This record gives sequence, C-alpha cells and structure tokens, in this order.
Amino acid sequence: MDELIDGALAEDLGHGDLTTQAVVPEGARARGTILQKGPGVLAGLDVARAVFERVDPDVSFSALVPEGEWRQPGPAVGVEGATASILAAERTAINFLGLLSGVATLTARYVAAVEGTGATILDTRKTVPGLRALQKAAVAAGGGSSHRAGLHDAILVKENHVRSAGGVAEAASRALAGAPDGVTVEVEVESLDELAAALDAGVGRVLLDNMGLGHLRMAVELARGRAQLEASGGITLETVRDVAETGVDFISVGALTHSAPALDLSLLLHPG
Amino acid sequence: MDELIDGALAEDLGHGDLTTQAVVPEGARARGTILQKGPGVLAGLDVARAVFERVDPDVSFSALVPEGEWRQPGPAVGVEGATASILAAERTAINFLGLLSGVATLTARYVAAVEGTGATILDTRKTVPGLRALQKAAVAAGGGSSHRAGLHDAILVKENHVRSAGGVAEAASRALAGAPDGVTVEVEVESLDELAAALDAGVGRVLLDNMGLGHLRMAVELARGRAQLEASGGITLETVRDVAETGVDFISVGALTHSAPALDLSLLLHPG
Amino acid sequence: MDELIDGALAEDLGHGDLTTQAVVPEGARARGTILQKGPGVLAGLDVARAVFERVDPDVSFSALVPEGEWRQPGPAVGVEGATASILAAERTAINFLGLLSGVATLTARYVAAVEGTGATILDTRKTVPGLRALQKAAVAAGGGSSHRAGLHDAILVKENHVRSAGGVAEAASRALAGAPDGVTVEVEVESLDELAAALDAGVGRVLLDNMGLGHLRMAVELARGRAQLEASGGITLETVRDVAETGVDFISVGALTHSAPALDLSLLLHPG
Amino acid sequence: MDELIDGALAEDLGHGDLTTQAVVPEGARARGTILQKGPGVLAGLDVARAVFERVDPDVSFSALVPEGEWRQPGPAVGVEGATASILAAERTAINFLGLLSGVATLTARYVAAVEGTGATILDTRKTVPGLRALQKAAVAAGGGSSHRAGLHDAILVKENHVRSAGGVAEAASRALAGAPDGVTVEVEVESLDELAAALDAGVGRVLLDNMGLGHLRMAVELARGRAQLEASGGITLETVRDVAETGVDFISVGALTHSAPALDLSLLLHPG
Amino acid sequence: MDELIDGALAEDLGHGDLTTQAVVPEGARARGTILQKGPGVLAGLDVARAVFERVDPDVSFSALVPEGEWRQPGPAVGVEGATASILAAERTAINFLGLLSGVATLTARYVAAVEGTGATILDTRKTVPGLRALQKAAVAAGGGSSHRAGLHDAILVKENHVRSAGGVAEAASRALAGAPDGVTVEVEVESLDELAAALDAGVGRVLLDNMGLGHLRMAVELARGRAQLEASGGITLETVRDVAETGVDFISVGALTHSAPALDLSLLLHPG
Amino acid sequence: MDELIDGALAEDLGHGDLTTQAVVPEGARARGTILQKGPGVLAGLDVARAVFERVDPDVSFSALVPEGEWRQPGPAVGVEGATASILAAERTAINFLGLLSGVATLTARYVAAVEGTGATILDTRKTVPGLRALQKAAVAAGGGSSHRAGLHDAILVKENHVRSAGGVAEAASRALAGAPDGVTVEVEVESLDELAAALDAGVGRVLLDNMGLGHLRMAVELARGRAQLEASGGITLETVRDVAETGVDFISVGALTHSAPALDLSLLLHPG
Repeated sequence: MDELIDGALAEDLGHGDLTTQAVVPEGARARGTILQKGPGVLAGLDVARAVFERVDPDVSFSALVPEGEWRQPGPAVGVEGATASILAAERTAINFLGLLSGVATLTARYVAAVEGTGATILDTRKTVPGLRALQKAAVAAGGGSSHRAGLHDAILVKENHVRSAGGVAEAASRALAGAPDGVTVEVEVESLDELAAALDAGVGRVLLDNMGLGHLRMAVELARGRAQLEASGGITLETVRDVAETGVDFISVGALTHSAPALDLSLLLHPG
Repeated sequence: MDELIDGALAEDLGHGDLTTQAVVPEGARARGTILQKGPGVLAGLDVARAVFERVDPDVSFSALVPEGEWRQPGPAVGVEGATASILAAERTAINFLGLLSGVATLTARYVAAVEGTGATILDTRKTVPGLRALQKAAVAAGGGSSHRAGLHDAILVKENHVRSAGGVAEAASRALAGAPDGVTVEVEVESLDELAAALDAGVGRVLLDNMGLGHLRMAVELARGRAQLEASGGITLETVRDVAETGVDFISVGALTHSAPALDLSLLLHPG
Repeated sequence: MDELIDGALAEDLGHGDLTTQAVVPEGARARGTILQKGPGVLAGLDVARAVFERVDPDVSFSALVPEGEWRQPGPAVGVEGATASILAAERTAINFLGLLSGVATLTARYVAAVEGTGATILDTRKTVPGLRALQKAAVAAGGGSSHRAGLHDAILVKENHVRSAGGVAEAASRALAGAPDGVTVEVEVESLDELAAALDAGVGRVLLDNMGLGHLRMAVELARGRAQLEASGGITLETVRDVAETGVDFISVGALTHSAPALDLSLLLHPG
Repeated sequence: MDELIDGALAEDLGHGDLTTQAVVPEGARARGTILQKGPGVLAGLDVARAVFERVDPDVSFSALVPEGEWRQPGPAVGVEGATASILAAERTAINFLGLLSGVATLTARYVAAVEGTGATILDTRKTVPGLRALQKAAVAAGGGSSHRAGLHDAILVKENHVRSAGGVAEAASRALAGAPDGVTVEVEVESLDELAAALDAGVGRVLLDNMGLGHLRMAVELARGRAQLEASGGITLETVRDVAETGVDFISVGALTHSAPALDLSLLLHPG
Repeated sequence: MDELIDGALAEDLGHGDLTTQAVVPEGARARGTILQKGPGVLAGLDVARAVFERVDPDVSFSALVPEGEWRQPGPAVGVEGATASILAAERTAINFLGLLSGVATLTARYVAAVEGTGATILDTRKTVPGLRALQKAAVAAGGGSSHRAGLHDAILVKENHVRSAGGVAEAASRALAGAPDGVTVEVEVESLDELAAALDAGVGRVLLDNMGLGHLRMAVELARGRAQLEASGGITLETVRDVAETGVDFISVGALTHSAPALDLSLLLHPG
Repeated sequence: MDELIDGALAEDLGHGDLTTQAVVPEGARARGTILQKGPGVLAGLDVARAVFERVDPDVSFSALVPEGEWRQPGPAVGVEGATASILAAERTAINFLGLLSGVATLTARYVAAVEGTGATILDTRKTVPGLRALQKAAVAAGGGSSHRAGLHDAILVKENHVRSAGGVAEAASRALAGAPDGVTVEVEVESLDELAAALDAGVGRVLLDNMGLGHLRMAVELARGRAQLEASGGITLETVRDVAETGVDFISVGALTHSAPALDLSLLLHPG
C-alpha cells in the first residue's frame, strides 16, 4: 500500500505544489473537515489517513464516523496541521476515499436490495488495476463478500475453458481432478443442459451465466441439494431482488468494482 | 506503465492460474476476439497489448478498430497464441481496456453534447490513484482536454487557498506574484463579487464554482475580454449544453475520471 | 372448445411438422417443462392439456402449480411422451396458455390495485373473437368478475341506444318496461344530469362513462341507496385505485380482454 | 372466415339483443361512424364489413380511409341501415377491427423504427388461436412480413430439436437432408459456436436467439455471404433499431401477434 | 395599475424596511442587476419599472433585453440609485415581474408546441384576482391571444347556461337573438350531438369541451365551413400539438393564467 | 378584502354578463355545487362566500367540507339562489378559491414530506401582489407557518445587505444593534465561513442559502445550541425530506406562494 500511495502522491505533486507555495503563508496551520456530500458508506479511511501521514506525520487525522455504515451526508473526517501539508495530501486522499467509498456504497445498495432472501452479494475479478485488495476490502465494508482473490486461489471454469476442453462435462472432470486440495471448483454454464452436465460431473458450485428468472428458478430446482448456485450477468439494482428470490445462493456483480460512481467528498478548511 | 501492468498481473495471477492448469490441454493454441458489447469509444489498446506481451510475447494482438472513434458494439481486437497465455492475460487486459474506454466514452458524450458551442471539456485531478496519465490519455481519446497534470504544472487557487490567504484579492495577487514564468494562474470563485475581485487583480483565468446559468451568463458579460472562464461543479450530461451556451470557455467534469462506468468488453475464444 | 382446439392445431400443423419429421429420431421420447418466464397468474391449463391430448392422448401433462395464484417465474407444467407429439402441440398449447394467463395476470393487477376498497373489477364484451368464454374464465382466475356474457343475458342501454330513443329518461323507461323477468337493466350516462334522469326512472344500475374523480364522487352521493354504480372508460392501473376510492361498486376494464400482453412461457425439453 | 364470424356473433348475440329489442323503436334506421380514437394503422376492414353483412346485408359499410396507412384519430368507417342491425353487429365488428388494427399498428411502429437499415420485420407463430391468417394479413398491412404460416411450410430447427438430435451439426444435417424441395431450412442457435456449426453444415438461414448487440455484430461478420441471419428474443421498440444496425437481415417479434394492444375504436350513431 | 402597485408595496413595506434602516449606511448608493435565472420570456417590465419609480423616482431602471422574446438565463434589468430605495422596491417589483414572465413563458411553450398548425392559443377568464389585464398582456407577450376580457364583451354559452335554458338548441337561439351588435356568440358543447344542434342553430363559434382526439377530428369534419372551433379542457403541453393537428381553430388553456410557475429572477447589487 | 373582491368582480363583470342576460330566463333560480376535481386542501372558503354575497346577498353558500384537511375529489360547496347571480359570481369566486386552495395543497404536500422530522415549513415574501394576507392564511390552512409579513415586522439581512455593509460580521452587528425591541434578527449566509461570522456576532437565527446536504449537516453541528437554522433555495418536494433530516429548524419555500398550481374546481348547476 505504501508504494501505491507514493505513486499516487507522485502523480499529483510532482516537483511541488505551486499554488500553495505562492499563496499560503509559510508556517500557516489549519483545521479542516472532509465532508461527505451524498448518502453512502465510507470505506478506505485507513488509506486516507496513510496519505496524510506520508505527506506530513504531524497532521492529525480523526475519523468522525465509522466505516461500513450507511449514513446521510455530513462531516466525515477531521484533520489538523500545517496548511501546506493538508492541501498537498487533500486530493490524493480524497481520490482514494471517494473511489473506495463508492464501491462500499454501491455494494451496500445491492446488499440492502436482497435483504432477507438468503442470497450473498459477491464481487468479481473485474477490478481497477492496482487496487484489487483495497476494492475487495471496500466490498466487505459495504456488506458484500469476495468471490476469489485471483486466478490462483480458486478454480472457475468459464465459457472459454469449456470451449477449449470440448464441453462442460470434460472441463468439469478435468477441473475436479486437477484441483489442489481445499480449492473450490466452480463451473460456469450457459444453459440448463450444461447445468445438468456439471451436476452430473459432481461439481459443488455452478455459475449460471445470464439466465432469465424462469431458468434460474428451474436451475434451483434441478440443483437442489447437489450444488451451490451463483447467478451472474447483467444484474442491476432493479433486478437483483427478483434474482435473489429464485433461491440462488450467490449473486456476483462486476459493477461493484468496475463501475461504482465515486462518493462525493470534499475538504473544507475551517475559517479563522 | 510496465510497473503498473506487472502489479496488476500479480494481483490476478499470484502463483498461477489454477483453472487453466487443470482444464486446458498443454500446448493448446487459440484465436480469440475481444468483443465490445456496448456502444462507445475504445481507449487503452496499447496498454491491453502490453499486458498480453508481458504474459507471452508470442501472443499476437491486432486492434480491429481505431481508438478514439465512437462505434457500435462489435469485434474490437483479435488475439492469437497459446490458450493458457491468452486466458492468463484476459482479465487484466480487459480491466485496463474497459476502464480507459469507459473514460473515453463518457468524455465523448460530453464533447458531443457541447458540439458547436466553442466550449472545451476538461478533466480534473479527481483520477484513480496510479492511473492518472492513462486516464488523461483516455480523456484525450474521447475528445476532451487536460486541465493540468497535477499540483506542479499550473496554479489553481481554490476555496481553501482563498480562505487561508484571507480573501480572493489577496490570494490572487500572491498567486500572480509567485507564479513561475510560463505557468498559468487560475482562481476559483464562488460569487460574482469574487469574480470581480479576481478580474481586478488581473487574473487571466477564473473557475466559476457551482454557479447557476444566470450567474454564469452574467459572469461571461463581466469578464468579456479580460479573462478566460471555466465552469465546474455538478455539471451533468443533461445540463452541460446549457452551461456551454452561456459562453464559458471551459467546462471541467470530475466524473470523467472518477465515475465513468467501464465499457463492457469480453474475450471469446473461437470454436475449433 | 374441441372445435377451437382443432382449428388452432390445423392452422399450425397443416399437413405436418416438417422440422420434426426431418430432425427428430423416430420413436424418440422426451420429458419437458413449460417454463413461466415472467411473474403472473396462470389460466387455461385445461385448454393446454386438451391440446396435448388432442395431438396424442399418450402424452402426460402435469400442472406443477395451481391456476389463479400470483407466482414468480418458474416451472409451470411437466409433459412427457413422444418427442414428435410434444413438439407438434407445443406452440398451440402455449398460444392458448400465454394469452389466457396474460388476461388473468392483468386482471390480478387491477384486483390487487383496488384491494380493500369494496369495488369489483369487471370485464366487458371487448373480447377476442372466438375466445370469449375462455377469456371470461381467465378473468375469473385473476380475481375479476364477468359483466355479462353478451347482448342476450343483460340489458345495458348505451349512448347509441339513448340517442336512438331520444334521451336517457325515455330509453331507461323502455328498458325497464321491456326487460324479461330477472334480467338486470343498466343504463350508461355521460353526465350527472343523465344520472339524475336514470335514477328518476328507477334504474337499479348505472354505468358512469368516462367521468373524472370529482364527478364520480358526486355521482356516488347522488345515487346513495338508489342504484349500483359502475365506472368505465380509460381507467388504467395508475388510476384505478383512485376510481375505486370514490365509492363506485364496479369498475369495468376493456383492456383485460382486448389488450393484455401474453404471459411469457416456453417449453424446454430436458437433456438426456 | 365465415365460420369465425358466425362463431363470434353467436358468442355475443346468443338468442338476441335484449337491449335493442326493448329500447330501439321498430323499423328505426340510423347512420353511424366508426371512430378511430388513437393514432395507428387500420387493418381488417373486410372482416368488419363481413360482420355487418352477415347480420344484415342491407347495412351499407363504407371505409372512409385506406387500410395500411398510419393515420391520426378520426372517422374510419361509415355505416347506414337498420338501427337494430347496426347495434347487433357493432361489438363483434369492432372486436375484429380493433384487434387486427392493433397488430398492424404495432407492426408499423417496428417497421418505422428500422427504416433505412435493410432489416425486415417478421411475425412468428405466436398468434391468437383461430386468428393466424387474419393476424398475418394485419402484419402485412403494417408493413411487416410473414415468417412462415406454420409447421408445414418451412423448417425451423429450434433449441428443442437440437437437444433431441444431440447437437446443432447433427440437427442441421438432418434438416437439410430431410427438407422437401423448395422448403427453406433455418436453424436457431444460442451461441457463436453453434452459429459456426450451422454455417459449416451449409444452412442458408440462421436464427440468432437472444444475443446481445456485440454478439449479433460478430455473427454478421462470421456469416458474411454464407447465410441470412435473423435476430429474435426480447427485442422491443426501444432496442430494435440497434439490432437492425448490426446488419442482420430479419428481426422476428412475437409481440406483434401475441401482445399488441387493440386500437381504440368506437361506433357513434349520428344525431337526428 | 397605480393602485395595484401601491397596494402591493403597502403589503410588503408596512411602516418601513427594518433591515435596511438598521444595516444599510445612510445615503448609500448602488447599482444592481435583475438576473433571469431560468429560460423564458420576460413580461411586465413596465410594471416593475413603475414599482421602482413609485418608491423613488430617482432610481434608474434599464431593461437590458426586450419583452416577448425567448431567452436563456442572464441579466435582464439594470437599476441604479439609493440602496435603500432599491431594496425597498426589490421584492414587489420581482413579484410582479416573476408572475407575469411566468405567464408569458408558459404561453410561449404552448405557442411553440403548435407552431405551423394554424391553431391559436387563447387564455381564459381563469385569472388571478386583480391581475387580469396584466396577465392578458403577458399572454400576448408570450404569443397567445385573449379570449375575451370578461363576461361583458362576448357571449359564451356554457354547460350551466345550457342546463338553465333546457338544451343547446334553445340556449343557442336565445344567445343569437339576445346578442348586442358586434358581439361574438360562442356555445360550449359536450358531444357531437350538441355540436350538431349548435351548428343547426347557426352559431359561428363552438367550444368543444374535453373531447378526445377522434371526436375533435370528427367535429372538424362536421363543422367544416360553418363555424370556428375551439378545443378546451385538460390540454397539456404534451397533448396540445395533437389537438392542434385535428384542425381546430383555437385552443384555450386555463393554466396559462392560473397555474404558470413564476420565472425565477433575483436582484444582485454590484460589488464596490 | 372587500376592495379586492370588488376589483375582481369589476374585472370580470364590467358593464354586465351578456350571456346570462341573453340566455337565462328572468327570475330563474338554481342550486349548484362547487366540485373539487383533484385531491387537495381547500382554503379561501370565506373569500368565495364573500364574493357570492357581494353579488347577491340572497344566494346561500354552504361549505360541505372543512378547510385545511386533505381530501379526495368531490363536492365542496353548495350554493342556491338566483341563477343569474350564481353565474355572475362563479368565476371570480372560483378564481380565489382555486388559487388559495392551490397554495394550501402545495403547502400540505411539503408538510407531509417532512412529517416527523421536527422541521417547520415556512412561506416567504414571494407572494402574488395584492394577495399576501390571503396566501399566508392559505399556507396556514395547509399546515405551514408564516416567515414574516413583510419588511416591517422582522429583520432578515440578505446577500445584498451584506454586500452593502461590507461583510456578514458588520451587517449582523448593525442589525442586532438597530433592531427594535422584540424584533427577530435573522442573517442569510452563503458559506460556512459566513455562518461562523454570524454565530460569532450573536445572531439568533441564520438562513442557509442554497447549501448542499453535507454543508447543511455541518452547519447544524456548528450552530448547535447557538442559533436556529433555516434552509432555503431550490428545495423541491423531492429533496425537502433530506433537507429536513439534516436537522435544520425551518425550511422556507418560495414556490408555495409564487408557483402553486391552482386546485381544479368547477361549479355545476343541478338539473331540474
């Protein structure tokens, strides 16, 4: 994370903050508030704190509200220290905090939409390059769960693997045979025929790609007691509850990490 | 960029791609297509190509369409090589390409909305940490312009600097006095009073923060011939044309780089 | 109904099912499911069953869910028998079932919208030629009631009769005088003046054509204890509750039988 | 058609029109107008005329506007004759005319939406039982084309046939081998893999079921010059133009005949 | 108008402007701008000018833009004089100007919606008590026309007169007989029957109350060359063009004067 | 009020009601109902009654429902007397009643939207010239409260006063020093800096102009226990609850009195 923060600061600061050098009196100190301007869930406070610390360890940073809870707009963080330091860290800290809180906020909306159904909202590997671990922590702050960290910690046989192996049955068998101990094997299917083949191969978890509600419901009946089911593909806030009510165990949503709008935040220095 | 790509691949691949190892026959080769599934503008083809190269220099990568042009859904890139290599690079390449094409696509929508008005669409420093240079290139691919690279290459006196300096007039004077040769000085103002103060101080460019259309129009009349004007704050695709028609020179939009939804892309291996 | 089914099968099958003859192995048998793909109320299961029976009495047909209840998408019917028979009956059976379930579904939406108000939802004579009895049964499955079967079992004096008789008072008197024993007499009125005339003539039921909510409410007060009231004309799902809350006894809706979209159903043969 | 009309009249009239018997003076004559109350395309004028003729050959029926043209609301048909005859035929004639004009109107909206793209709008076998021929004529009046009359005049290998035959390649070969001379063979596919198999089998026309725009565009490139393509599945007025612009040859729309709302029509007797 | 202005000033000022007395330095002078904050048409500039004059004849008032033209937000009026006078007149002047410009703006939207159809937009007697003449001038500024000034300068036989007279024919005859020379006689009708009666009576202008598009079109055909037609009742910006295209001569809209939202205006004193 | 009513009647009646003179039989008497045609809150019944009395003291006027309560459409007032008198008073009475009920209805919607939050809905001085007292009574009927009657009964230091005084601190001090005993002093601020200045000056009530939700929430925390807060500026029915939930004490809404659509009312004479 240090490297990430240093890189982000370098992008923004380069050889120095010309404006502050010109305008802010030397030695000036200030107090400020990071204001949350839309409703949502904060995530990434530790990263924001680390950005300020990296710029100037003497800037104090106090979270005024906890991460992971839905809250209406209002003050989120208090900072105090050298004005020049606060202004140098401001944009980078808020870029992290806004992006990660955006992920947590969108996740929380999906989680709220399926409340009471038994379905779990999952993220995917469709993350922002360089930010996967932070985004997955933000998904957790929003109440979602992680699908897998990457290609290395779980097996998910997708359409392209199936095509390469020559069919679901063959791909599933190879995956089950080749999986290291303790590694989950999941197979993506496009139709109820492929679901039947995956179940027959003994797969314990199946991803149902882009199926309508009727097909999902029928898949749930077919799989009853034999495998866990995950729905994926084009599921929106408008449709996620209906999907959850078909009885699937998991719903994975790429948009959580590739298309969440940033939470609107800004830093206000206090008068006086 | 190499570092960025290596980091992204490391996140995804870790100690290896378990699924491909289990399912894909050794030595298998494939051809595939990256399919653009929604309308938009491609950006980041070079990054995607570099991801494949980094994984396996023997994978060929052919862009089927140019960057920077609005196109309907369809095939975007052809790849050919070892199946295992293609599948190892797939997600990381598409994560870059989808994010950057999303930025270019949103930019292109704003640029189209103001066509013929003389206003220029600008990005901001509200970028994804680590990706600023790539995102700014994507904004350019979408027809937008870069505001400034960071704190180091231009002066923008914002609300917090004004507060720290004790007023617009004072802040503007200090900025003009302290600016290195050849560096633009811009001052953000919240009201027509502050605009008058900035103009009187001789500032050549003023950012009008969060003003209504009436105030913007009046600002244009006040500033005529004395400074360039930039509108910013809460401007959406629905409102941007009205803003442009007030006569401002620039419109900056943070959402281009912090809230653009990813362009929907996927890789299909060819049958046979 | 037999005639209707035979006619529908003849339309579809003509001199035979060329595709099945060419593609499906002789003697092949299959199991299949009719899948309900949108939410709604099933109606017409007996007709669908009769279609399969007519094509091949050896095809079994098992309803998996009851008619007349609102349900989410999922399996609706199981069929089993000769593949060629199932495929020959499929489209005709689903054409009946989709149309009638569409009627029941739209009716159920109107009935739900007025729940607790005391108003009864009625169908009209605006039915699909040839399908009136089936559509009226579908309205009942959706919780609605039948207005009258046709011109022969109730008197409804409409605008054209009034014009022909020279006024509401005259038309109403003639209708009351000429009505066979036990036949209800209802008179359609366009204004409160006409309502007063109908009430004065002693009519027991009045249809209020195309009146606004204020007029309906005033009509209810005028008619109190003297006649039942029915509202009709341009009433939609958005407005039906407000109409019901004026206190009218009945609301008739032509769209139930002339403009209900079909319920989305399809038949899936099971793999293996 | 005579049988259909007689059946529809019997449903409505039963043993007689009680209202007219009671209210309309014997021997009364009237002129009336069938008024089109919403914008759209008339279809089924011949059927409506036949209904009046069947009730009373002395009623004159004059179409005031041509079939098959989009028109704003206004007078559509003039009738003149015995009042009792006009009122007896009214509802049945309008039930036919409203339903068929609704089909023509919805078709015309789809046809207008794809204007200039080269794509042809087709109906399906998802018709109202008993009314297929009339509905297909109404589709033609609206500018659409007929897919096939029924199972007997063309071969369309669908998902269930494929499943029964064990795969697209096998099903396609059998269909081509078994097709009578001059009968078109079309094969429905769910994926680009299946499209490749169908093209390899030499099929001249392929139905692309429920594919996204990106897949459709890629299918058009794959099939170039080898087969005609038809898109189907969930295509709405909002999406049909985008589908047409992918370059497919045909777009089939079940809703034309199973879910078109009736055109709003009513008969007004003239005063005096 | 003087009385009206004095009354409005008295409402607002009472025994004096406490705030200005306390805060504004005696003898202070200022320049200010009335800013139009939404798009629209200005009306009532003379009234606003008169308000300032009434408070202090030494305040100068310069309209920066003409009345009666659609314009985007921007400066509308310049004022200069004693600060206390400007602030005392501000609210009253803007209350007039906002209300009247709101009327002109809504009128202009209706007029634009029917452009090219030949229909004329009319106001009604549904005006704000005390402001009828000013509102009618504002309608004219927006491009509309005046129906009649009041009960005294034209005859319009409405539903209640018809009821009182015992029918349209009788009411129309009396109106034609009793009309002073040069006074237009118009009759409101609720149905095509009543239209026929009014035409037969020789009425030269008929108001068609609350009719659907089909009925309006038929009315136009019935009346051809015999009377001018005016449509009224529930016509909105969404529906007015369709109404105009039926061929009616006039469309009257009560909302122009009873429900137009005020145009958003505010006065800004200039800095310095 | 008498003057206002006389003026309004004079506008409408001028030298007499030509229509009634021509059409209504001398000496005719009638009963009628004022019908409320949309949902809402009645206000101004006394004014309407006074209009009828002014025209003819022998017309009886009976309110059928109370003012100040939300009600569905239905009969609102009964009148009885000389037909000519009723028709002469009709439009003027309804113009008052519709306008004032419109104000009460819009107020009631805002009040309902903030129910349970502790925030009070206020009107402003943005009233219809001549009708301020009546409009403020209508706001009260709708459940809102009055801000101040005019410039004379409370001090509100606005942006223009601040500019004239040279800053918030100075303007606030002058206002507090110059306020007569018992007169409230309120200061409008545009930013949190200005809020701090006003609080420091000892102002007891602050108007927060056009602030976002985050700023409002932060203002509530800053002001805690030191001053009452009022939010204003661009607050709509969609946003008012979120504003109320920030904890402000008052919300003022200009639209209540300058842009409320009239409540739809009409007078029906009874048949017979």
